Amino acid sequence: MEKNIVVIEGDGIGPEVTRQAVKVLNAVAEQFGHEFFYRYCLMGADAIDKTGNPLPDETIEACLNSDAILFGAIGHPKYDNDPSAKVRPEQGLLKLRKSLQLFANIRPVITYPSLQHLSPLKAQQLEGVDFIIFRELTGGIYFGKKELSEDGNRAADDCVYTRAEIERIAHLAFQYARQRRKKLTLVDKANVLETSRLWRKVVQEIATQYGDVKVDFLFVDNAAMQLIINPKQFDVVLTENMFGDIISDEASVISGSLGLLPSASVGSGVALFEPIHGSYPQAAGKDIANPLGCILSAAMLLDHFGLAKEAEAIRLGVEWTLVNGFVTKDIDPINFYFTSTIGELVSDFV
Amino acid sequence: MEKNIVVIEGDGIGPEVTRQAVKVLNAVAEQFGHEFFYRYCLMGADAIDKTGNPLPDETIEACLNSDAILFGAIGHPKYDNDPSAKVRPEQGLLKLRKSLQLFANIRPVITYPSLQHLSPLKAQQLEGVDFIIFRELTGGIYFGKKELSEDGNRAADDCVYTRAEIERIAHLAFQYARQRRKKLTLVDKANVLETSRLWRKVVQEIATQYGDVKVDFLFVDNAAMQLIINPKQFDVVLTENMFGDIISDEASVISGSLGLLPSASVGSGVALFEPIHGSYPQAAGKDIANPLGCILSAAMLLDHFGLAKEAEAIRLGVEWTLVNGFVTKDIDPINFYFTSTIGELVSDFV
Ligand SMILES: CC(C)[C@H](C(=O)O)[C@@H](O)C(=O)O
Ligand SMILES: CC(C)[C@H](C(=O)O)[C@@H](O)C(=O)O
Repeated sequence: MEKNIVVIEGDGIGPEVTRQAVKVLNAVAEQFGHEFFYRYCLMGADAIDKTGNPLPDETIEACLNSDAILFGAIGHPKYDNDPSAKVRPEQGLLKLRKSLQLFANIRPVITYPSLQHLSPLKAQQLEGVDFIIFRELTGGIYFGKKELSEDGNRAADDCVYTRAEIERIAHLAFQYARQRRKKLTLVDKANVLETSRLWRKVVQEIATQYGDVKVDFLFVDNAAMQLIINPKQFDVVLTENMFGDIISDEASVISGSLGLLPSASVGSGVALFEPIHGSYPQAAGKDIANPLGCILSAAMLLDHFGLAKEAEAIRLGVEWTLVNGFVTKDIDPINFYFTSTIGELVSDFV
Repeated sequence: MEKNIVVIEGDGIGPEVTRQAVKVLNAVAEQFGHEFFYRYCLMGADAIDKTGNPLPDETIEACLNSDAILFGAIGHPKYDNDPSAKVRPEQGLLKLRKSLQLFANIRPVITYPSLQHLSPLKAQQLEGVDFIIFRELTGGIYFGKKELSEDGNRAADDCVYTRAEIERIAHLAFQYARQRRKKLTLVDKANVLETSRLWRKVVQEIATQYGDVKVDFLFVDNAAMQLIINPKQFDVVLTENMFGDIISDEASVISGSLGLLPSASVGSGVALFEPIHGSYPQAAGKDIANPLGCILSAAMLLDHFGLAKEAEAIRLGVEWTLVNGFVTKDIDPINFYFTSTIGELVSDFV
């Protein structure tokens, strides 16, 4: 199989971790007889530094013409504490999501027995946790109209959802639920928000087409509690953009290592794969970041190409490193291996 | 001291728990020579059933003419799954907050050593956790314009903040931080939202007036993680309405029992005190609900009256019941005591 992959290294530890994922993809290509062509593109603070634009047109075009995108991370602290900065790295990512219509961010949350000691949660909370979050990614308050009054004393963000936006991701989530434990939980705030009431109504309607899937509804404040008290109850979780940002990050720490979690952002066309962790600037350039989140994102990318055996080989390689104690500093601050070493070990395994 | 207290029992377990808190307040009054006059008012599903209105004008008036409000809980499942219900219990609470200008919801999160085994978190995460959340309560997306298109296919919620709204709660939070460990964390999403950038800007400006308080800024997704990974880092947390709803509920479970946590909602006039837990309809009328959240809310109410010794007597009484194993079913499902028994034990103690 021949495939064109756009690689966006991005900021902070982004370049280091994507490099390991590419190493692993090359090992897969060789082992299974595929050809992957990479095109490197700019986005984020890196792109601002080099071009003044957090998402150069060239990057959008390259992405539109590719079969998939592998992305590292985005963000730099120098923009965070300057509320009046006009250009920000995050604008690049948000614009890319919108340009490619990546309407669903899919985050599997699974736990690794060998990492259980690292979880902030007790073992009884953790055992058997296995769910997947569907976060709407191109609507809601992220993309609504933003306003700042001329005197700078009043700000507004509009949160908007249409039935069509809710339907397309709801169908996707229901289809996944069917392949899994047949349970879907909608997280909303229907007791307060009009948009949440629309979500609840549309999901209730669509649910009738998936009679084999049990549906329940949780207010987001309750969901934030349930994720800690009893995460086992979840199978497929569906939610809007802002709530998804919060609860999927909350969910990501229960496994014990944020550094391991991958994600896929899909839409009607090309899809993007990225680790959950951020740009983690303090660790940049030190060869200590955990590349497994990005490597497992590459596995999701292969699944997306229909290369299930190849994806599985990567996952087995990752588990092999964990079980044998080949881990980065975030997992074991004393006996740790470098980012690049882990990348080589997984590559050698596949 | 003579004080007029409005009691709003509300829905579900609300009546049972407020009754215990009133019992304890009466014991305090007798013990310390005060007179508390109670006026019972309607709000929520209870008020809808009896008057058709989730917040009768009578209730607002009584509250405005009182010295403080003790409130149980609100909400009923029959409204939750009906996205097109026109009248909802929550409207009562939201309108009351707005009418009384209760702009700050204050939630202390502390842990009880005798309950540590109930926490979903490991002991090392938990020890020494002691922070307080300031949630803005009368602005943001809760109170912005809501729209549903005529065909029902498009919904919108507007999130608005003004400088003045941010300033008044920020000053309050800084003043508390000064009395505590002198650290304030603003939780926002300034990398995406215009309103968050206004929050960050105003808080940065106000911070210069409180040079002894260390200020930091966390994106809400990161905050949702940090609350689980390392809750000890927090002292005073300040945030807007919707984020506050989510993270304060998330924070409330780390202590091991939601049933114990009180809160105060304050503004320029009369203040309202209520437990964090909701109406918990499944437990209503069974005398099994935990009344300590409401009893400790009564302690906050006494603090508000300047009755620190009296409040302390309640807190000691609560600790005495916990240490001696007089606990409700949520704490010990086998050897448990009834709601009313716990109320009596704390009353006898003060
Ligand atoms: C960087 C930021 C804009 C982004 C978001 O909020 O969507 C990130 O937190 C994420 O979850 O991918
Ligand atoms: C009942 C509901 C409207 C309310 C809120 O969201 O503010 C509740 O969750 C709370 O936190 O007091």
